[in-house]
Amino acid sequence: MSSWGKHIHISVFGESHGAAIGVVIDGLPAGETIDLDALLLQMARRAPGRDKAATPRSEADTPEFLSGLLNGTTTGAPLCAVIRNTNTRSQDYGNVLTCPRPSHADYTGYVRYGGFNDLRGGGHFSGRLTAPMVLAGAIARQLLARKGVRIAAHIASVGTICDQRFDPINLPDTLMEHLSGTTFGLIDPTKEAPMRDLIEDCRRNGDSIGGTIECAVTGMPAGVGSPMFEGVENILSSLLFGIPAVKGVEFGAGFDGTQLRGSQHNDAFCYENGTIRTKTNHNGGILGGITSGMPILFRVAIKPTPSIAQEQSTVDLQNHCDTTLTIKGRHDPCIVVRAVPVVEAAAALAMLDLLMEVHT
Amino acid sequence: MSSWGKHIHISVFGESHGAAIGVVIDGLPAGETIDLDALLLQMARRAPGRDKAATPRSEADTPEFLSGLLNGTTTGAPLCAVIRNTNTRSQDYGNVLTCPRPSHADYTGYVRYGGFNDLRGGGHFSGRLTAPMVLAGAIARQLLARKGVRIAAHIASVGTICDQRFDPINLPDTLMEHLSGTTFGLIDPTKEAPMRDLIEDCRRNGDSIGGTIECAVTGMPAGVGSPMFEGVENILSSLLFGIPAVKGVEFGAGFDGTQLRGSQHNDAFCYENGTIRTKTNHNGGILGGITSGMPILFRVAIKPTPSIAQEQSTVDLQNHCDTTLTIKGRHDPCIVVRAVPVVEAAAALAMLDLLMEVHT
Amino acid sequence: MSSWGKHIHISVFGESHGAAIGVVIDGLPAGETIDLDALLLQMARRAPGRDKAATPRSEADTPEFLSGLLNGTTTGAPLCAVIRNTNTRSQDYGNVLTCPRPSHADYTGYVRYGGFNDLRGGGHFSGRLTAPMVLAGAIARQLLARKGVRIAAHIASVGTICDQRFDPINLPDTLMEHLSGTTFGLIDPTKEAPMRDLIEDCRRNGDSIGGTIECAVTGMPAGVGSPMFEGVENILSSLLFGIPAVKGVEFGAGFDGTQLRGSQHNDAFCYENGTIRTKTNHNGGILGGITSGMPILFRVAIKPTPSIAQEQSTVDLQNHCDTTLTIKGRHDPCIVVRAVPVVEAAAALAMLDLLMEVHT
Amino acid sequence: MSSWGKHIHISVFGESHGAAIGVVIDGLPAGETIDLDALLLQMARRAPGRDKAATPRSEADTPEFLSGLLNGTTTGAPLCAVIRNTNTRSQDYGNVLTCPRPSHADYTGYVRYGGFNDLRGGGHFSGRLTAPMVLAGAIARQLLARKGVRIAAHIASVGTICDQRFDPINLPDTLMEHLSGTTFGLIDPTKEAPMRDLIEDCRRNGDSIGGTIECAVTGMPAGVGSPMFEGVENILSSLLFGIPAVKGVEFGAGFDGTQLRGSQHNDAFCYENGTIRTKTNHNGGILGGITSGMPILFRVAIKPTPSIAQEQSTVDLQNHCDTTLTIKGRHDPCIVVRAVPVVEAAAALAMLDLLMEVHT
Repeated sequence: MSSWGKHIHISVFGESHGAAIGVVIDGLPAGETIDLDALLLQMARRAPGRDKAATPRSEADTPEFLSGLLNGTTTGAPLCAVIRNTNTRSQDYGNVLTCPRPSHADYTGYVRYGGFNDLRGGGHFSGRLTAPMVLAGAIARQLLARKGVRIAAHIASVGTICDQRFDPINLPDTLMEHLSGTTFGLIDPTKEAPMRDLIEDCRRNGDSIGGTIECAVTGMPAGVGSPMFEGVENILSSLLFGIPAVKGVEFGAGFDGTQLRGSQHNDAFCYENGTIRTKTNHNGGILGGITSGMPILFRVAIKPTPSIAQEQSTVDLQNHCDTTLTIKGRHDPCIVVRAVPVVEAAAALAMLDLLMEVHT
Repeated sequence: MSSWGKHIHISVFGESHGAAIGVVIDGLPAGETIDLDALLLQMARRAPGRDKAATPRSEADTPEFLSGLLNGTTTGAPLCAVIRNTNTRSQDYGNVLTCPRPSHADYTGYVRYGGFNDLRGGGHFSGRLTAPMVLAGAIARQLLARKGVRIAAHIASVGTICDQRFDPINLPDTLMEHLSGTTFGLIDPTKEAPMRDLIEDCRRNGDSIGGTIECAVTGMPAGVGSPMFEGVENILSSLLFGIPAVKGVEFGAGFDGTQLRGSQHNDAFCYENGTIRTKTNHNGGILGGITSGMPILFRVAIKPTPSIAQEQSTVDLQNHCDTTLTIKGRHDPCIVVRAVPVVEAAAALAMLDLLMEVHT
Repeated sequence: MSSWGKHIHISVFGESHGAAIGVVIDGLPAGETIDLDALLLQMARRAPGRDKAATPRSEADTPEFLSGLLNGTTTGAPLCAVIRNTNTRSQDYGNVLTCPRPSHADYTGYVRYGGFNDLRGGGHFSGRLTAPMVLAGAIARQLLARKGVRIAAHIASVGTICDQRFDPINLPDTLMEHLSGTTFGLIDPTKEAPMRDLIEDCRRNGDSIGGTIECAVTGMPAGVGSPMFEGVENILSSLLFGIPAVKGVEFGAGFDGTQLRGSQHNDAFCYENGTIRTKTNHNGGILGGITSGMPILFRVAIKPTPSIAQEQSTVDLQNHCDTTLTIKGRHDPCIVVRAVPVVEAAAALAMLDLLMEVHT
Repeated sequence: MSSWGKHIHISVFGESHGAAIGVVIDGLPAGETIDLDALLLQMARRAPGRDKAATPRSEADTPEFLSGLLNGTTTGAPLCAVIRNTNTRSQDYGNVLTCPRPSHADYTGYVRYGGFNDLRGGGHFSGRLTAPMVLAGAIARQLLARKGVRIAAHIASVGTICDQRFDPINLPDTLMEHLSGTTFGLIDPTKEAPMRDLIEDCRRNGDSIGGTIECAVTGMPAGVGSPMFEGVENILSSLLFGIPAVKGVEFGAGFDGTQLRGSQHNDAFCYENGTIRTKTNHNGGILGGITSGMPILFRVAIKPTPSIAQEQSTVDLQNHCDTTLTIKGRHDPCIVVRAVPVVEAAAALAMLDLLMEVHT
């Protein structure tokens, strides 16, 4: 199912080369003014062709709002936004699946849907379906900002080239605002050049490269979330693994933290100006599934773009034999760059949903 | 909420030092014979005191089945199993939270529940609540075995000491069966001694250590799961992050895979005895949220046990000042060992739920 | 929330005088051919202006399919259909709620959404939102027909004028097909004239009238549905009460059956050509929430259209005083006629969802 | 599935003649004191043998609380309550289904569960499973009372003998309190004798009789509930149809109201001491799925108890032929009496769930 959420319920639809993609957002509070420019900024961050590291396929991606908005304000009814597919080159793809692209969902979708799924451009599996997620997240983040919650992510690594990590204790608003409005977000700007060089090298070689994204949420009050299956980690990851190419999610110190001793990893509590905080933040702001009031921190692993220009081994489903495949079309050599606002959008939706759970 | 699942719905209840813990499992098919010995074996793998690396607190953990079973066979009605809490030493804990234990849910639970939650032994946040999960998973795994699905996990690392990884292509039944029935499961048995030494060293120093668990599922047919929010990764992680101390989940090559190029990471398709397989398995058997027919592989990060004997800094909630805390009681210096069957149980529940989704 | 369903998940959006209304249908099996003409026939049955008993407001109501369909066949991805609002006369309504219309959702929506909901034409509460339900139901009924399941409803009563009831045991396919394709469906055609006279009388007097709809489902196998909260009655009613103006739902003998003795009401089992059937069908084909294989029968109560031309007492929310109101605009004096295909659509969605629950 | 609820989630388990029945209630706010005597009073109202109109089978029905309560106060963790089955006479039933009892779920359960369900005493379909619902409702009603919400029901009819209806506008607290604490609740006490006579007559004749229950909720604020599928009617009916023998639900004027003209049925708004109210209440306090602030009123149809002593026609499933059946055991000739607190419990759970939905 392509729907998600308990309080803020989203239903994402569309195929890459169909008529349109879009999202229905149900459960939005009424009376919230939506800043359309801010929303379009978020969509532009994800859109291809805005950054030379991305695919040259340029989409307008201007959403039409069919419902739920009146004079720029939410009505409380389900909000439906539609983005038309315009610049599609379907001739790049047929709809008879002969040779599934390695590491794509071609083959698994073929089995799952008995060959009836729209294969063109990846269909419903396409990364293009993250556009409605960013749109929904852009609305969520505007509501969150009114509650003092900020969300920002950066390119934590491309291949083995790493950006600096967030300071897990101290996340200045200026940094959060800078990152959440830019397209190649880094904490250490000196890493941009080597990262771009690596991506360019991959493009030239008909290859691609993976990376990681680190995301931070500030301003969440303590006490949000629930133990076991509705914890902050559960809810966040249920959305994050909905982003194509995401293969891992870790919170706080995550996998690295497993090498620490408890005496190193434990976050000691302390009072700071009358507020309870922790001196370190190896738990990424979450204890027992519930926010501690510290910044929420998580990292997401993005696999290398599976669409590469190099010839690859695959099977011929018609003739039941091994064969080779050369993928045509325009593809990002590193999807990490454009995935940054998608990860932020997922975080925004998760945080809004969590904040709407009331316990009294 | 402590309930989970679409087709197999579990509702976990209980507090560590309350009368009992347990689980209601709704949606089980009728007519399935439950092998009670096999179920108790799984529970014994998780139970404390069975392995010298674990806490000496010994619990009977013998479940009573209140409903859903008749003559050892499922009736189709919700199955409720209850495990009494017997060997509790509540005097180790009071129920007035004065000093929250670092890295525990004491403080977040206190804020979330306004101080009314049962603090004794961690209450509903206790690792003891994984016993009902193992019980439910033990039932699920018996049903899965009848469909040819096997699940096994091993201790992938304790601190920096690593076991060998699963061969992502070839997972012999003998290995799967050995691991899913043992208590200190390793692929490379020579790693047991250094791991135990490290754990013992932590114990002696009043400290603890984290680790990782790798889990494999074999026999899942291709085409199971859905794109976006009901993919295999989403469903698995929504359960896995319900296990206390889990701070990260990755599938296939996961975070390491982000350093690869597409030409390295992509899993080429090929025919093998008429069946479509992939030559490598960096995607961990999942493409676009849907199974590919290859083994499903994932790793879970377990943080170091937060309960350590060393003195720690914390706050005094009554007097609103900083203070120190020394935790008494019996605690595992490395929870990884006992978490192995819990991770398997989560995998079993997720797989059964996924297999019960029908698309026609 | 305006979303519904476990296996077939619908998300309805739109406001009566906004840009468009529509629905996202998630969970449809792939590879199902959709007969567009049959779909449009169902929508025409609900559309206003097709029958002289209905409002003269004529809408094209031609849906555009944005996703989920390729060459007229379902792809398995969420299907989004959009119906533009064209013939709207918003000047009939302002968006400042001064005087709530009695028996409408104006006042309750005003409180619920803090005055931000789109009031024009009833907004999201409008009966027009049943168009997407009919569309979704028209798809569901095509899939059901391939499984031998038929759905038909008729006007059981308008005011005190009653049509004949369905024979609860014997429902010929010819009757089912006739009713499910017509616009003023009756079993006894001699009741059309008096019903139309009564409706016309109401119209002339600026008044309206209620009625009941009886619906039958044939061809459902025995053993579908679950006890307690996922029974056939629960699932059907959760949809039926989503139709505006529905104030009651009863199954089989329903309220009348409460006056019978058990010896009269009990449906005796018998073999008929090797198949188990019941001699009577007071339970409407449902026992313990589960289908018995007999026709499923239920009745729905539709209150009189609240929009009447007569002057009515209401309050002035701006001046906080009592006042009177005369509603302008075009309104059905009897919504029952157009609600018949909506009730069928709800039944179709419920039956498809129930059939997709698999128990093994 | 036997679980229900979005904010207050209940999971009911047990079979009539198994070890125990019970319920897990998840989502209860922490810190709520539970009055155990008030809870037991509600359970006693439902228990058999307390009223001469009911079955002589006497059950202790004293629940044991396994979790979620500490010193009589909710901890916020899932609350599990277990009721042991003691006074069972399983010899009255075998577990091989030969002859399904007419109007019972024997046959449909047999098909649904492939013959593996626990048939003894109706198993999970038994009316005894309403005991955990009453328990959960008794907790919900205590929380509601603290918010000024009261719930009461009465026997509206037994056969054709009718009690007076609630005044839909004016429901004094004294009446609400009286009804919600008694066992043969009537507004007009003179109807008790003829109702009891009718019931006794049915018992003497080995027969049974149906009836209706009317329920009122006072004190619900305006603006609670949502349009379409999460309206007050949808949520209430999704629970009410989970009560065995319920075959119809109507709100406000319900089916009778369909005979009225709009000018008669519409509820005019007026100010009363500065508060907006309606002069009549034909809509039962609900407009567009949302509360209007007026009393919520609904009626429930209860079919005659299917277990009657008279010989009945049925089939022999073993020998595939028609046969007759005489049901032994102790059965209520009129289940309506004991269903009154169950209907109230369902209303309490629905109201609490609705009130916990927050829209801002």
